[in-house]
Amino acid sequence: MKPVAPGPVRGVRRFDIDRVAAETTSAVDDAVAIEEPLEIRLAHSGSDGKRAEQSISVTMRTPGNDEELAAGFLFTEGIVRQAADIERIGPCGPAAANGLINVVRVELAAGVAVDLDRLERHFYTSSSCGVCGKSSLDAVAVQGRYDIHAVDIRWSAACLGGLPADLRAQQAVFEETGGLHASGLFDHSGKIVLTREDVGRHNALDKLIGHALMQGMVPLEQYGIVVSGRASFELLQKAMMAGVPMLAAVGAPSSLAVELARQFGITLVGFLKPGRFNIYAGPDRVVDA
Amino acid sequence: MKPVAPGPVRGVRRFDIDRVAAETTSAVDDAVAIEEPLEIRLAHSGSDGKRAEQSISVTMRTPGNDEELAAGFLFTEGIVRQAADIERIGPCGPAAANGLINVVRVELAAGVAVDLDRLERHFYTSSSCGVCGKSSLDAVAVQGRYDIHAVDIRWSAACLGGLPADLRAQQAVFEETGGLHASGLFDHSGKIVLTREDVGRHNALDKLIGHALMQGMVPLEQYGIVVSGRASFELLQKAMMAGVPMLAAVGAPSSLAVELARQFGITLVGFLKPGRFNIYAGPDRVVDA
Repeated sequence: MKPVAPGPVRGVRRFDIDRVAAETTSAVDDAVAIEEPLEIRLAHSGSDGKRAEQSISVTMRTPGNDEELAAGFLFTEGIVRQAADIERIGPCGPAAANGLINVVRVELAAGVAVDLDRLERHFYTSSSCGVCGKSSLDAVAVQGRYDIHAVDIRWSAACLGGLPADLRAQQAVFEETGGLHASGLFDHSGKIVLTREDVGRHNALDKLIGHALMQGMVPLEQYGIVVSGRASFELLQKAMMAGVPMLAAVGAPSSLAVELARQFGITLVGFLKPGRFNIYAGPDRVVDA
Repeated sequence: MKPVAPGPVRGVRRFDIDRVAAETTSAVDDAVAIEEPLEIRLAHSGSDGKRAEQSISVTMRTPGNDEELAAGFLFTEGIVRQAADIERIGPCGPAAANGLINVVRVELAAGVAVDLDRLERHFYTSSSCGVCGKSSLDAVAVQGRYDIHAVDIRWSAACLGGLPADLRAQQAVFEETGGLHASGLFDHSGKIVLTREDVGRHNALDKLIGHALMQGMVPLEQYGIVVSGRASFELLQKAMMAGVPMLAAVGAPSSLAVELARQFGITLVGFLKPGRFNIYAGPDRVVDA
């Protein structure tokens, strides 16, 4: 196959947000890294010699170089062994409402055998859909349990600004290894009441919410969550499922995290530092005093 | 069900490593955050009323609070709706050689319906194994294509130290959003010849390797890879599949990343800064001059 030229980076979406700095809140226009699902579909010869097509992965990615992403995924996961195993790669199906095509289709060369057992053992696979992207992208459609829009709770800017240092102080393992993400649950006064750590940010949050669930604390509508890293779609989805009205991240949010927070009424704070942070969604829950 | 008390954090493994600082290399003992697979198995009533048991997820996690992690995962992914849906959670099967039990089994209460279609659409599922953990943890067993141990290439400490700034200079989107991971491919002279960015670190690396594959550059035995964040098992696995002899990370490595690098002969550098970094595996490829 022909090499695919590196495509243009289309990685940024702009949002109107509130920036808190030096005790002043200003409306600013902010650039956020785009996060969108990409479904990788594989067309190949089945064990009976007939052509088969399967969805083998949905990954949350930044658009751009999608063909490279699909080729690299198939190669590093051991599904193809060389460039010649790939006959064709390209975007598939109609563009979504936002103009992006979130499905890439890889056609393997005739005679390239795929270990379907291995595929099914290691990956999300689905062959239920004849039309590119129809059912598989439903995997990232979310449905809330709780009405978070209506939750009436507020935190002061000063109290939010103190959270990163408090979280760090409770991170037993991070201090030693520098290698763990942390999630902290804080109450209406800004006090961190529970922390969990993990190499995976989603796992740290699942541990926290799992504990709260088993303690009968869910929905967590009188609490906020602070996370040590970036705020991805996945973290917002988990917060939403637990009914949390506030997610404050030390790092950057993704575009899909901002969109999900706005849709479900979650207040989303990013780049959290003492006296300085951005509010990407739900600014009414942040007050000055 | 009874609440599960927060377990002790068992998150650290110690390694003998080389630390480079102020033009001197010293052997030191270093603490690394543990990353190990956790398989979540779900026992529930099938649609025909019979009890069924399935592996629904393998996640790379830091051991500790595994029951909370499983409960939180099931709840935030919409598989259970309340604590009462869970009858019992506990570790399952024999401990691995390192003493850890990497399977957690969740038994749902009688009558709790699970949407199997949804499960299969959204998650890795496998019912092929009657014994806890037997086949599913194979998902993280890796097999190399290339003999990386034998690759004869070296970089100077000075050249490695300059990589983070060079990578950052080429990160078009990060500068604007603060929200993207980057991977860079560098040659024998330390020059970065290709960079890719993504909200997901594994995607940035797959894009890079996918491009190299399609350009006929694989195996990448005359190149190293620098990554802007932490070095996880997944990144080392991908580097190994592409035959890369050097992975240098600005952040911390995980325990499994160190173990995989040592097993397959990849040089692994972490906490990379100008004039100061740690060598976790393969120190012979780093020279002073």
